[in-house]
Amino acid sequence: MSENFTFTLKATSGKARLGEITMPRGTIRTPAFMPVGTVGSVKAMYLDQVREGGADIILGNTYHLMLRPGAERVARLGGLHELIRWPYPILTDSGGFQVMSLSGLRKLDEQGVTFKSHIDGSLHHMSPERSIEIQGLLDSDIQMQLDECVALPAEEKEIERAMEMSLRWAERCRVAFGEQPGKAMFGIVQGGDSQALRIRSAEGLKQLDLKGYAVGGLAVGEPQNVMLEMLDITLPVLPSEKPRYLMGVGTPDDILKSVARGIDMFDCVMPTRSGRHGLAFTRRGKVNIRNARHAEDMRPLDEESSCPAARDYSRAYLHHLVRSNEALGGMLLSWNNLSYYQDLMQGIRKAIAEDRFADFQAETLAAWEKGDIDAP
Amino acid sequence: MSENFTFTLKATSGKARLGEITMPRGTIRTPAFMPVGTVGSVKAMYLDQVREGGADIILGNTYHLMLRPGAERVARLGGLHELIRWPYPILTDSGGFQVMSLSGLRKLDEQGVTFKSHIDGSLHHMSPERSIEIQGLLDSDIQMQLDECVALPAEEKEIERAMEMSLRWAERCRVAFGEQPGKAMFGIVQGGDSQALRIRSAEGLKQLDLKGYAVGGLAVGEPQNVMLEMLDITLPVLPSEKPRYLMGVGTPDDILKSVARGIDMFDCVMPTRSGRHGLAFTRRGKVNIRNARHAEDMRPLDEESSCPAARDYSRAYLHHLVRSNEALGGMLLSWNNLSYYQDLMQGIRKAIAEDRFADFQAETLAAWEKGDIDAP
Repeated sequence: MSENFTFTLKATSGKARLGEITMPRGTIRTPAFMPVGTVGSVKAMYLDQVREGGADIILGNTYHLMLRPGAERVARLGGLHELIRWPYPILTDSGGFQVMSLSGLRKLDEQGVTFKSHIDGSLHHMSPERSIEIQGLLDSDIQMQLDECVALPAEEKEIERAMEMSLRWAERCRVAFGEQPGKAMFGIVQGGDSQALRIRSAEGLKQLDLKGYAVGGLAVGEPQNVMLEMLDITLPVLPSEKPRYLMGVGTPDDILKSVARGIDMFDCVMPTRSGRHGLAFTRRGKVNIRNARHAEDMRPLDEESSCPAARDYSRAYLHHLVRSNEALGGMLLSWNNLSYYQDLMQGIRKAIAEDRFADFQAETLAAWEKGDIDAP
Repeated sequence: MSENFTFTLKATSGKARLGEITMPRGTIRTPAFMPVGTVGSVKAMYLDQVREGGADIILGNTYHLMLRPGAERVARLGGLHELIRWPYPILTDSGGFQVMSLSGLRKLDEQGVTFKSHIDGSLHHMSPERSIEIQGLLDSDIQMQLDECVALPAEEKEIERAMEMSLRWAERCRVAFGEQPGKAMFGIVQGGDSQALRIRSAEGLKQLDLKGYAVGGLAVGEPQNVMLEMLDITLPVLPSEKPRYLMGVGTPDDILKSVARGIDMFDCVMPTRSGRHGLAFTRRGKVNIRNARHAEDMRPLDEESSCPAARDYSRAYLHHLVRSNEALGGMLLSWNNLSYYQDLMQGIRKAIAEDRFADFQAETLAAWEKGDIDAP
């Protein structure tokens, strides 16, 4: 624990970084995976399970929470941690990404964005200052600047316009955030798939001397190699003594390849969303539990897993639950998947500490490629 | 534990009975409430929670399980207990009730019933013998005779025909079940809302000397007083040394009033189904957590409850989860409701042991009528 938000780089292995963020609500071991609690709940999970699975921090979505229960209401209830029973760090996004993807009738200009709630059609305005105000009302520990994320592919001019405005918004968010020693406000590198714009964005943000830097606008449909290329050219520009967060990413493979390039933090709905759809992540790659070959397989998903969902329940039962649309199927597979992600992060951290990250990455890939255990 | 299925009547208080069923897989304290695990899962619950909440036995639905995963498949997988990880007693219904209510294209005659699966439209035939065979394949501990349950209101002639056929089916089920000392097959009293037919049904079943007796065809839409009247005239006919099970019942008030008449076992989807719809059962009556008055109430549902869902989560959070259709809302309220039901049964058993059941019933009713705790 610490009174101040601090990031300590503890070891490297190649470009992979082992670190630690300390702040009043707890310590975050990096590289870190942050389970997504969109609406104040990591879907189909008890937060005790999320914590026991190894999460140091979870993510809340500003867009969803400002609409329901509402930021002022959350503040009156003592903040998000108190409301949802998670006393550890919480990161909130700025709301911008979901305003763009979920809401209707957007009007965007230099001042901010006006949008219609997807829940009840009510009109809302969000400026950079209001985004930070909302994140403060939620009592978020790591807050994100408001940015404009352009869907790819897009015209270079359009990407540039959005990137430049996002830079100006970063400055306004920094001012709005002010001095809060125990918390942090991160900037977000934009610039689409343009190397030059990514570099300009990173340099502009670096001058603001923020407590951390995110890379945004990736994993929005572009090929993985474009995403990695953007990391390759962006990360060297960012200060090495600050944490780096790749937003909305990704698959276990995305995570390994991004850690290899120096990313410290990740968030993604994939483990829980896939779990609800019958897809399990395991040491031996992805397993579609709906597949008929599991129907009479009484072996667990992975008897060596640390997670009861993977170890104590048969594939036959999981198959039956998912096929029957029973809630327990999604509960168990979400649990398995989040545990798998956290175990992967733990393996990554251990490998960096031992300066054998490249070997760990190769071994992990080899195990995935070996494929699932054979049919009985 | 016991090698044989035995029922011991331990105390009475008025007509209320305290008892114990022992069988190889465990002891069932009666009056007992059996959570319903329709498709091999008590919806949105971990079975560990169901057990810790106080359940000695759960119910499985033959109709659902015979269609998916299929009785022969369950048998190949080691039986239902093994598949779902519940080593304690399981009661299965005969499948008859749901064939009547869920499936299409029924053809019913003396031999049995032919019906179309509601899942894939496939044709199935169920005779009394096949129902017992299926329940055996599931490895059910307490099996129910196949019966025909007539929807009320109905013509007396029609009720009589179905009741008489159900009696003949009880005999066939008894023969098919044979001698299984560690298990039991229960008969089902039918007869609709006719006193005379109910008495004839009970007398006919009594002559078969079964290990237990259920009262069926009630709580199917008739007023509560009709149901209680049927219990009043049926139960004195049944042998007092055998357990009595009121199928598909009911509200906490139904349970109290039925225990007062000598019922020993209950099952109902109400606690879990209501939970998924935002209705919480508490010592102070029913609470609709969707109601706006809970939106900023940080107090728990019931701080004196034995259940973490009732004690450790705020009404404001439960309200938010249910309004937002988050799975966790249904998970927590199902947990609360099952715990409430089991705590009620525990209170009932304690009161009978102390020969103060009537007082307990009055106190419980008074607490419900007092209504929910006041708004803050």
